[in-house]
Amino acid sequence: MQLGFVGLGKMGLNMVTRLARAGHAIVAYDLNAEALARAAAAGVTAVDGLDQLVAALDPPRAVWVMVPAGDATESTIAALGDRLGADDVVIDGGNTHFPDDLRRAAALAARGVHHVDAGTSGGVWGLSDGYCLMVGGPAAVCRRLEPIFHALAPPDGYLRVGDHGAGHYVKMIHNGIEYGLMQAYAEGFELMHASPYDLELDRVAAVWMRGSVVRSWLLELTARALATDPGLEALSGRVDDSGEGRWTLEEAIDRAVPMPALAAALFTRFRSRADNPFAERLLAALRQQFGGHAVTAAGDPPVRP
Amino acid sequence: MQLGFVGLGKMGLNMVTRLARAGHAIVAYDLNAEALARAAAAGVTAVDGLDQLVAALDPPRAVWVMVPAGDATESTIAALGDRLGADDVVIDGGNTHFPDDLRRAAALAARGVHHVDAGTSGGVWGLSDGYCLMVGGPAAVCRRLEPIFHALAPPDGYLRVGDHGAGHYVKMIHNGIEYGLMQAYAEGFELMHASPYDLELDRVAAVWMRGSVVRSWLLELTARALATDPGLEALSGRVDDSGEGRWTLEEAIDRAVPMPALAAALFTRFRSRADNPFAERLLAALRQQFGGHAVTAAGDPPVRP
Repeated sequence: MQLGFVGLGKMGLNMVTRLARAGHAIVAYDLNAEALARAAAAGVTAVDGLDQLVAALDPPRAVWVMVPAGDATESTIAALGDRLGADDVVIDGGNTHFPDDLRRAAALAARGVHHVDAGTSGGVWGLSDGYCLMVGGPAAVCRRLEPIFHALAPPDGYLRVGDHGAGHYVKMIHNGIEYGLMQAYAEGFELMHASPYDLELDRVAAVWMRGSVVRSWLLELTARALATDPGLEALSGRVDDSGEGRWTLEEAIDRAVPMPALAAALFTRFRSRADNPFAERLLAALRQQFGGHAVTAAGDPPVRP
Repeated sequence: MQLGFVGLGKMGLNMVTRLARAGHAIVAYDLNAEALARAAAAGVTAVDGLDQLVAALDPPRAVWVMVPAGDATESTIAALGDRLGADDVVIDGGNTHFPDDLRRAAALAARGVHHVDAGTSGGVWGLSDGYCLMVGGPAAVCRRLEPIFHALAPPDGYLRVGDHGAGHYVKMIHNGIEYGLMQAYAEGFELMHASPYDLELDRVAAVWMRGSVVRSWLLELTARALATDPGLEALSGRVDDSGEGRWTLEEAIDRAVPMPALAAALFTRFRSRADNPFAERLLAALRQQFGGHAVTAAGDPPVRP
């Protein structure tokens, strides 16, 4: 079927490529001319702006928005809302916070435009393996879009999970779980790295993929990373977070659901970005105050006991 | 090849069945006559005691011990040590704490008997899928046992990870990671269970198996459990622990490696077994002391705000 597509970043470009390969007629727009050219080379009709994109589609139109969450998504959906008409659909495939879906769906509905939120997982491997799709929106509208969802997802990899916001809600918690899983592997591999045995961690990760209880796709990626650089010497351990872990923990607080493993994972990321953090300086100060314990001055090399 | 096998519990019986199917000559002993009869029906030679087991094997002998960690393993390996001779091997396939391996290996070595520790993962699914094997012990002795390891493991599912204790060390951390992974899923699914959306959690788990970043074997088991009982109404949430999580955390403390997600997972299990725990009563008492906050008397039904 025909689909408009806005946003040809590393996710979007792979997605339009997968859709074009499945025979869908994709009309795509991005600010970046090089990304547009690459999409055109993949069999997509590239256009120069949102007006051209809307004009190139037959009503009822469907436009997939795949731009960074926050301002970019907000302004893109608002601009599409100004250009689309009754029974057209905007699909937000980014990592939007679900309350924004509810607000945008209501704003679009005033103009007769439908909103569908599609939580999309699979990273850069989605082009070959397919994207897991968790979709929220009116059932009839979602049904109309199923050819697109089935082309993007692997077999049985698409589910309408509920009404507006449900897709991003489920994707948010998916990412919260992802934080906890990553933290569990990171802690265990660090302990093996520090162990008295001279363990070949890449081979341990690889053998665990064969019949062990902890086998997973993240473990497969761990094995791959360790095979390239067994000590991970080339990397800094400063770890970003992109919002979904925070939102999951905020939602847990709102619903009084304890999530200590997620909290540990999220706070580990926060701490990974701090140089000589205040809390640890306060701990050192207090030990000196009450016990006269030795402290390390700022700038001195660390002393290990 | 020929192998003695002691311990036909839910793991051991499946393992001798898998070995017999692969054409190995297994001589097995267990205190439980019914388990012995089931092993015999699976093509295993069943014997009535350790003397008969040792007598039925040609030197150099190999005997796999698959009994509960702790006293049962201690007494079984000691009894085998009294009966075995130079160049025979004892393989401990249970969940032994690695310092016990070092002690037992030294005791057996005084009699010329080898010790090999085999961390074994796969649970009740190992019969069909194979067991992931993490093995510690002298390289030449492990090499001699490879026909057994390869028959138990799926392809590429056996790895000698190091010398004495290394197999159980890696298995210990494997199980520590398992605690963290389980906790991450448990937290996320509880939040979805408490969510404002009426989510079908079994279908969410199933769709996440298709291309999502959090796909894993534990998630597959989650989907299976939720498909049978979507609200998990039939279960109590009292969760046991079998020692490996504690040992991993103790080792982390010895090596000063932070493992907050594992700690959260282990402490969640401890708390799950407590009725009206002291710490929470102290929290309530303190809130009453300093703020005059209302408290719930022991035995009263909980009041939710």
